[in-house]
Amino acid sequence: LARFSEANTREINVLVLLCMLMITFSVTIRYFFSRVRKSFLSQHRIHFLASLVWLIGLAFIGGGVRQSIGLFSQIDTDWHLAIFWTEFCLVFRGIWRLLHTVNRLSRTGNNPAILLGGSFLFLIIVGTGLLMLPVSRAQPPELADPIGAPFITALFTSTSASCVTGLIVVPTGSYWSTFGQVVILSLFQIGGLGIMTWGALLAVASGRSIHVRQSATMGEMLESNGLSDLKRLLLTILLFTLMAELIGAVAISGLWSDRPLGEQSFYSLFHAVSAFCNAGFSLQDDGLLGMGERWQVWGGMAALIICGGIGFSVIYNLVLILKSKYWDIERTPLFSISKQKTRLTLSSRLVLVGTSLLLLAGTFSFFFLESLASEGSSPLGHRWADAWFQSVTMRTAGFNTVDLGEMQTSSKLVSIGLMFIGASPGSTGGGIKVVCFMLIGLSLVSIYRGRPRVEWAGRSVPDESVKRALTIVTVGVMTVMLTTLLLTIFENRPGEFIDILYEATSAFGTVGVSTGLTAELSPPSQIVIMVTMFLGRIGPLTLLLALSRTNQGGLEYEYPEERVMLG
Amino acid sequence: LARFSEANTREINVLVLLCMLMITFSVTIRYFFSRVRKSFLSQHRIHFLASLVWLIGLAFIGGGVRQSIGLFSQIDTDWHLAIFWTEFCLVFRGIWRLLHTVNRLSRTGNNPAILLGGSFLFLIIVGTGLLMLPVSRAQPPELADPIGAPFITALFTSTSASCVTGLIVVPTGSYWSTFGQVVILSLFQIGGLGIMTWGALLAVASGRSIHVRQSATMGEMLESNGLSDLKRLLLTILLFTLMAELIGAVAISGLWSDRPLGEQSFYSLFHAVSAFCNAGFSLQDDGLLGMGERWQVWGGMAALIICGGIGFSVIYNLVLILKSKYWDIERTPLFSISKQKTRLTLSSRLVLVGTSLLLLAGTFSFFFLESLASEGSSPLGHRWADAWFQSVTMRTAGFNTVDLGEMQTSSKLVSIGLMFIGASPGSTGGGIKVVCFMLIGLSLVSIYRGRPRVEWAGRSVPDESVKRALTIVTVGVMTVMLTTLLLTIFENRPGEFIDILYEATSAFGTVGVSTGLTAELSPPSQIVIMVTMFLGRIGPLTLLLALSRTNQGGLEYEYPEERVMLG
Ligand SMILES: [K+]
Ligand SMILES: [K+]
Repeated sequence: LARFSEANTREINVLVLLCMLMITFSVTIRYFFSRVRKSFLSQHRIHFLASLVWLIGLAFIGGGVRQSIGLFSQIDTDWHLAIFWTEFCLVFRGIWRLLHTVNRLSRTGNNPAILLGGSFLFLIIVGTGLLMLPVSRAQPPELADPIGAPFITALFTSTSASCVTGLIVVPTGSYWSTFGQVVILSLFQIGGLGIMTWGALLAVASGRSIHVRQSATMGEMLESNGLSDLKRLLLTILLFTLMAELIGAVAISGLWSDRPLGEQSFYSLFHAVSAFCNAGFSLQDDGLLGMGERWQVWGGMAALIICGGIGFSVIYNLVLILKSKYWDIERTPLFSISKQKTRLTLSSRLVLVGTSLLLLAGTFSFFFLESLASEGSSPLGHRWADAWFQSVTMRTAGFNTVDLGEMQTSSKLVSIGLMFIGASPGSTGGGIKVVCFMLIGLSLVSIYRGRPRVEWAGRSVPDESVKRALTIVTVGVMTVMLTTLLLTIFENRPGEFIDILYEATSAFGTVGVSTGLTAELSPPSQIVIMVTMFLGRIGPLTLLLALSRTNQGGLEYEYPEERVMLG
Repeated sequence: LARFSEANTREINVLVLLCMLMITFSVTIRYFFSRVRKSFLSQHRIHFLASLVWLIGLAFIGGGVRQSIGLFSQIDTDWHLAIFWTEFCLVFRGIWRLLHTVNRLSRTGNNPAILLGGSFLFLIIVGTGLLMLPVSRAQPPELADPIGAPFITALFTSTSASCVTGLIVVPTGSYWSTFGQVVILSLFQIGGLGIMTWGALLAVASGRSIHVRQSATMGEMLESNGLSDLKRLLLTILLFTLMAELIGAVAISGLWSDRPLGEQSFYSLFHAVSAFCNAGFSLQDDGLLGMGERWQVWGGMAALIICGGIGFSVIYNLVLILKSKYWDIERTPLFSISKQKTRLTLSSRLVLVGTSLLLLAGTFSFFFLESLASEGSSPLGHRWADAWFQSVTMRTAGFNTVDLGEMQTSSKLVSIGLMFIGASPGSTGGGIKVVCFMLIGLSLVSIYRGRPRVEWAGRSVPDESVKRALTIVTVGVMTVMLTTLLLTIFENRPGEFIDILYEATSAFGTVGVSTGLTAELSPPSQIVIMVTMFLGRIGPLTLLLALSRTNQGGLEYEYPEERVMLG
């Protein structure tokens, strides 16, 4: 923003004028080229109205309304008045458009996408309110009156925690009071559980009716499964999560054995929940820096991260297989999963193989890229442990045992790749998801082998799924690139492009690693990062919902096909 | 490479061992999990053999073969011998694999993909030979014996010219003699014509039979159209190209009016051909730096670039429409285009709208991003002219009227986007192509609107085309990222990541702009850039051929479908 206020405002003014001019021009052109002019007019009423009102206003200004009737005397010149008027029209048009879009999306009743986004927004707003209370902030001793955190800091922290990202503008351990830390812990616990539950619900719904019906409300979707089944699913997820976190907390408690018992318990619990939910928040200002060699980190924390990132449905699938192998299943298993109880589903297979591949590839890449650059600086075992932990954490958890800013550019690029891919569907992780990544890889294999379908383990994947995976990747790349572009415009850091790309991908994949840029970002950049975190969290699920809805829209009309030339 | 030789070779040795170990491990695992073990064994005979031979060798080495029989006495230790043996096995396996792949691809006779790649390879090799001759190089006056260019320089220049890229490691104007410059001119003229012809041929072939048949040889493909038709198509393309280039050369000759007539003509012709073929080679060491305000550049050169980049089929389509509007068509038009003679095809529409959009968006982005950073440094008209020319040239031609290394990071990122998108299908341009970009955009619109198909101008696009477009984008992003990763490993330039990404995209999109990095690259990086230029040139067409072939492979067996969970 600093650069903007310095910059000559003339260009921005011209831009504003051109923007409105282009809107007016485009709507006129589209009107003349439209097939049914009357329906076009009624559909785009608001565009015409905005442009018309704008033009009339301009005409008045040109006609000297300011001088003749003495209005707007506080504005310098007609030119300024025209700019002001244009900005007003643009903002008015924007707000109307937003309302229109919300209205369209919500027309289908309790649209799952609105519910999904709304639930996270609600969580963020409540969190922001709580974090702004003076009691949430660790009070500096020299101050008499207690002060709360500024709005933007609270909003950023709340967004980061609710979206289970872990990017921070202030150190969690020293800036917030214990109450504030409990609020943050609750936010990422609820956010993590929330996204797992949503994933499971949508999988159940789409597993049942194959496609989420266009008019389906969440209620309708779940009705057929019965409310008791729903309760059991939610309860199982909740119990599983809490159990894993408690066991994890006990396992890693040795890390803080030198602290008093109360603090040790809180630290263990906070980090265990943070690891399982792939949140990446840490109470220590330098994260887990230098702790890489301790087994609680490369063993305990890594296990928690992998468990949380592999997804509930895969673990459930594995548990059912084990159960059916060694003893009879007394109670009916949950929902549609029951049909495939004794066999590894294709999704589970893809997740397990993909996760193993990525963990191995990441470990080896980090080890060799870092060793090539600075060999012998630390013992071999330590370097392997660091490489392994970074490989585990980079796909979505976002802890660090090394200074990430000091890593090689090539390692950072590998990290960006891992962050973009992310964890499993229906887990607490982000990114485009491992299954999506595997489908892309398998589809390339099928092209090379000349096979018409994507095949794996004796099953073929529907073409529709492959197209969805490709769409998710493309939209993901576009989101990351747009975020990066905005950050490069708002930040003046010529030599740090890789760090900006790293930050953008970290936000998109809700990873939360940073090379140290986050705390130095200007307010507009912070807003960009917040929006990207939010999109990274709810985006892929929303996109999938939208894609499944396009599959069976009421086709009142259909156009003839025409092939296009691509190469 | 400097970094590699410095680095401790121990890590590389371990990597080599692990590589072979992993291959052995994976083939064993896959054997035990394969459905039909016997056929798996016979299919992967060579993998088993390589691993077995390797293991036996290792056993002998471990058994002390060196000491006991006195062989390999020149090798220091058993450890070195084991490494040497492993490397040998890896190389042997790699060569066998390559042969196998070539054999599989060529099994279908004159496979179009092999022909396409082969023709460009042939051109590159001939060009390299010619450029290595002493007569091609401008001889420094202080030398008595004439010397030729080094192999890697000649190879790089020949690849860059044949693939119509324009990246250079030595200045074209001062390093090469006039003979060498004529060789380069011929290479990009042939390369440009070649890719246009291939595009037209493949469009004709796929337009006729909807899908290129799996067994189709080029001959079969063209047979149905008759040889005379083929000749006419090629002749039309040739005539159109030469005419456009000649007119262009005359138009831009004013740029060098201060030079003698012979030189002026050569300069005009060279730059006109370079512009029309979107080659981006210039005889001036600093390109068109500072010439942005002259109408020959923003008018003449820009028109040539746009004409060359918009593709032959679109121009032919436009000519036919004009013809049919104002007078009767006496002769039968060429091939399948005839069916749609009097109407703008969907491809043409997408190209024209997409090109206009990108030109406008690029111009405005460059103008505003550069103006925000350094306002008032040069007059307004000059800045607009520069922004316009960069917008025109960035999508694939690769000339420059400003110092590209001095541009803002945000402008560079916009450039990378434009380079990645590239020009039209069937043109001299590169990238993923404008139609692909438009299809992606339209498919997002259709998702937002909840429509099941991608629609535009009263036509719907086949789902298959959209999936292909998405595949091209995904593979393109992967190629650029892999190139960037390799460059960051081979080059030690921590603060110049954006320039490396820029260079990689420039090679992929066969654009040829550079922030000044190319000439400083180490040999391994130069090889990476060469491979990427080659892939960027033949990749998208080859991928499309492969994709259309997967569409109707002989399905001896088919697996049951299983849906996967993506979100
Ligand atoms: K995270
Ligand atoms: K070029």
